[in-house]
Amino acid sequence: MPNWWRHYHRDMLGGDLGAGVVVALMLLPQGMAYALVAGLPAVVGLYASILPALAYALVGSSASLSVGPMALTSLMTAQAVAELAPVTGLTAVELAAQLALLCGAVLLLCAVLRLGFLCALLSRPVLGGFTGGVALLVVTGQVETLLGSTASSTALGVGTLLALYGARLCLPPRWGRLAPALVLALATCLVAWGNLQQSGVQVLGAIPAGLPPLGLSLQPSLWPELLPSALLLAFVIFVSGHSSAMVLAQRRGERVDDGRELLGQGLANLVSAVSSGFPVAGGLSRSALNHVAGARSQLAGVITALLLGLALLLPTGWLSLLPLPALAATIIFAVLGMLDLNGLRQAWRYDPRDAGVWLATLLSVVTLGVEEGVLVGVLLSLAGHLARSSRPHIAVLGRMADGESFRNVRRHVVETREHLLLLRIDASLFFGNATAIAGRVDAMLTPAVRELVLDMSAVNGVDFSALFALGELNATLARRGVRLHLAAVKGPILDRLCRSSLLDELDGQLFATTAEAYRCLCSAELAE
Amino acid sequence: MPNWWRHYHRDMLGGDLGAGVVVALMLLPQGMAYALVAGLPAVVGLYASILPALAYALVGSSASLSVGPMALTSLMTAQAVAELAPVTGLTAVELAAQLALLCGAVLLLCAVLRLGFLCALLSRPVLGGFTGGVALLVVTGQVETLLGSTASSTALGVGTLLALYGARLCLPPRWGRLAPALVLALATCLVAWGNLQQSGVQVLGAIPAGLPPLGLSLQPSLWPELLPSALLLAFVIFVSGHSSAMVLAQRRGERVDDGRELLGQGLANLVSAVSSGFPVAGGLSRSALNHVAGARSQLAGVITALLLGLALLLPTGWLSLLPLPALAATIIFAVLGMLDLNGLRQAWRYDPRDAGVWLATLLSVVTLGVEEGVLVGVLLSLAGHLARSSRPHIAVLGRMADGESFRNVRRHVVETREHLLLLRIDASLFFGNATAIAGRVDAMLTPAVRELVLDMSAVNGVDFSALFALGELNATLARRGVRLHLAAVKGPILDRLCRSSLLDELDGQLFATTAEAYRCLCSAELAE
Repeated sequence: MPNWWRHYHRDMLGGDLGAGVVVALMLLPQGMAYALVAGLPAVVGLYASILPALAYALVGSSASLSVGPMALTSLMTAQAVAELAPVTGLTAVELAAQLALLCGAVLLLCAVLRLGFLCALLSRPVLGGFTGGVALLVVTGQVETLLGSTASSTALGVGTLLALYGARLCLPPRWGRLAPALVLALATCLVAWGNLQQSGVQVLGAIPAGLPPLGLSLQPSLWPELLPSALLLAFVIFVSGHSSAMVLAQRRGERVDDGRELLGQGLANLVSAVSSGFPVAGGLSRSALNHVAGARSQLAGVITALLLGLALLLPTGWLSLLPLPALAATIIFAVLGMLDLNGLRQAWRYDPRDAGVWLATLLSVVTLGVEEGVLVGVLLSLAGHLARSSRPHIAVLGRMADGESFRNVRRHVVETREHLLLLRIDASLFFGNATAIAGRVDAMLTPAVRELVLDMSAVNGVDFSALFALGELNATLARRGVRLHLAAVKGPILDRLCRSSLLDELDGQLFATTAEAYRCLCSAELAE
Repeated sequence: MPNWWRHYHRDMLGGDLGAGVVVALMLLPQGMAYALVAGLPAVVGLYASILPALAYALVGSSASLSVGPMALTSLMTAQAVAELAPVTGLTAVELAAQLALLCGAVLLLCAVLRLGFLCALLSRPVLGGFTGGVALLVVTGQVETLLGSTASSTALGVGTLLALYGARLCLPPRWGRLAPALVLALATCLVAWGNLQQSGVQVLGAIPAGLPPLGLSLQPSLWPELLPSALLLAFVIFVSGHSSAMVLAQRRGERVDDGRELLGQGLANLVSAVSSGFPVAGGLSRSALNHVAGARSQLAGVITALLLGLALLLPTGWLSLLPLPALAATIIFAVLGMLDLNGLRQAWRYDPRDAGVWLATLLSVVTLGVEEGVLVGVLLSLAGHLARSSRPHIAVLGRMADGESFRNVRRHVVETREHLLLLRIDASLFFGNATAIAGRVDAMLTPAVRELVLDMSAVNGVDFSALFALGELNATLARRGVRLHLAAVKGPILDRLCRSSLLDELDGQLFATTAEAYRCLCSAELAE
């Protein structure tokens, strides 16, 4: 029995039941639509929404995460499958199942190896640019279906889109989230009533009734070729599910367990592979609906899955008239919400470099492809981080009026002494910046300076290369008659320095605080 | 006229002349030996020691750097040329000249684009492991020549090696450095006197007399294939020359100019390409000899070059009897000194991770190849840097007896309050660690804590992803009735935070120092 079941209270049932019904209404058309985005038959989207959701509910840690087909993963599946389908002679459905299998295996392996921390590699700008780029790709892919080939198609598609935006403006958010299901039901009725198929409106067509067929024939020869896509998909599945679960857990004051999330997502994908599905993930928008609609536990997801299973057991003829232009409109409406221009604006105001990474990722996704885009984004954000730590801020310090604190001379009214230079280095010292910092420090000396104190309060690390640079700086300064002192060295660094010869070679002293260095080096001057 | 010539004093001439002669005596056999290492005729090593050295003297910034053939660059040249020679039908000499041309072009381009800072990518452990690995490769390549095919060969080779080690032990360092030239002269005399060629001792053979032939036929079709090797060679040439120049400049209290170094090395390689040479660099051991022997200016290098030119103009027959086993012994003797086991030991004591990077680089160079080894080393040290900043130290602080300073409770006797948790985060906050830090901070709370102060004195940056993580941490804490405060935020970070909504959303306050936060939050408790 999963943990949540053991602590289940009867008064949680109402919320779970309501949320389960609401999410099922959203997932029924959405699952089919995202299967179409992935280049698969619509019914595969429903298969991927049933057993994988049950599997997640069994081990996943989030009470409100709704696991199933998602725009991001569908598009990535489409790209991975499209490349291989012509070469291998397998159907897209078979390839997608192999991909889900690999994703599941990778996620479970990450759970075992405790690699959850790797998802930190996807910074917020990269995630934002990536999601935005995928949204644009999905929209361009759907425009043709939205407009169709006849006037009736175009009218139905554009009409649905307008109706969705109208509903968002007019309805309260709680009801607005159900708008896609209602509008689609209306559009289906319209097709049936007006016999619009005759006017060239494409419809979904027959959905085979019956539960998902189980079973999977392993195709190990394909795995090497699918692996790169599977690795990236697993990465995106985990980050997307994990960040959504975090947001929701925060609203409830709960915690998310990395390991259990990886297990849950991994199991869901394995189950998707053996139940005729394709890669699945937990997305924020559907999970937020689940939360808002009252989900109190994983039971809400179980109810959604059971309802979708029921829909496949009942006669599915009524689904066959669902008009594709209207379905395309709901997809476009959903994914355009992923293009978070407000987040981009905030990033721009906060730090243009972060906004640059965002835009570069978006452009790379759109022009180079989904996988290449993520790679460009991750590399750019890593390079940006290194570049920032390579050119650190160095502050000249002076004594504040309280006599104890020392602050940047440019920002505060402080007391300084001519023979004594106090510098605070705002960076960890490592091979990438140590030599450059030593050079800059050297260049900041005036001829009157006799004592140089490095305030190390902001130095969180000194690697082996930096240790040498400090030794060389000390030697260079000594030759010019300047003593190098260190102040406020952190404990872990001091432990390490004691195992080197630097402290013996140092011409100056080691002070516990900059205040102590100031007192000692100024009184020495008076005594001379 | 170069700068050093305009400030030349007559009393510097003695030193320069002495050093020029001494280095020429070392370079004559060494240049030929390194040409053999590169898989080229011995005379090419002399060509590469004449005009390139003059070119460096014209623009280079170091007074004592001796530019010419080096073990590192020779081995890299050998590997790059060996791959292409059979495919292209060109001779190794022609290919090596094209390689030198590309190296020169890359270095000059780096000078124009001011890319000198990139050499910081080669950390000390990577440089140490790389040099050590190359040394081992060169030694294994020379063992066959050292032992030769007859007993006389073996005796001569091993005898030379023993004589060199004996000279190092017995002679003062100043004379010891001339030992290779003396021992080789002795060995040559031995060959001439004993007619050892007849006993199967291989000798150098005829050296064509005359100055280096000028000219170069451009082979642009080869450049794409040579470019990867040229990029890495340029990198190694610059780092090796730059670090040697730095060490020597320090002894003289001078500074090294990145841009002029790049120009000097670039020009030297271009000139090497057009004067029948191969890639050249400035190494530490020969430059140190130059410095120790009294070099006062770039004139010492000019004199060395002129003497080598003179040696080529005089009859070169006496060189032809130089025994190859003895030459191999001097190479082995020279490169084994590059295997800096003492540096490895120091790195191990200081930080085993740095020693790990060192060994991994060495092993990769030996097993995978020179270029792959450097790549592995650079990637490992970057990954290590990221890993360190991803799992930072977080200290719980308490008030010291002086009432003003706050230190780690584990290292000092300090006063703490139950309702107030003071944490100092010892890292810049960025996408790679922000979420993990927020999680760790959250987990450090005890139920009694009502106020959480983050001491930001060691936080040197907060990127856009970390900004969100702080906002989320504040929200999570607020839901549990804990207020988040920030103290000692650095000016540049504060400027940035003011452009975001974090400070408005923060439930707690912003304090200038942790002491202020402590006073304020403890007196508030008393007042309640």
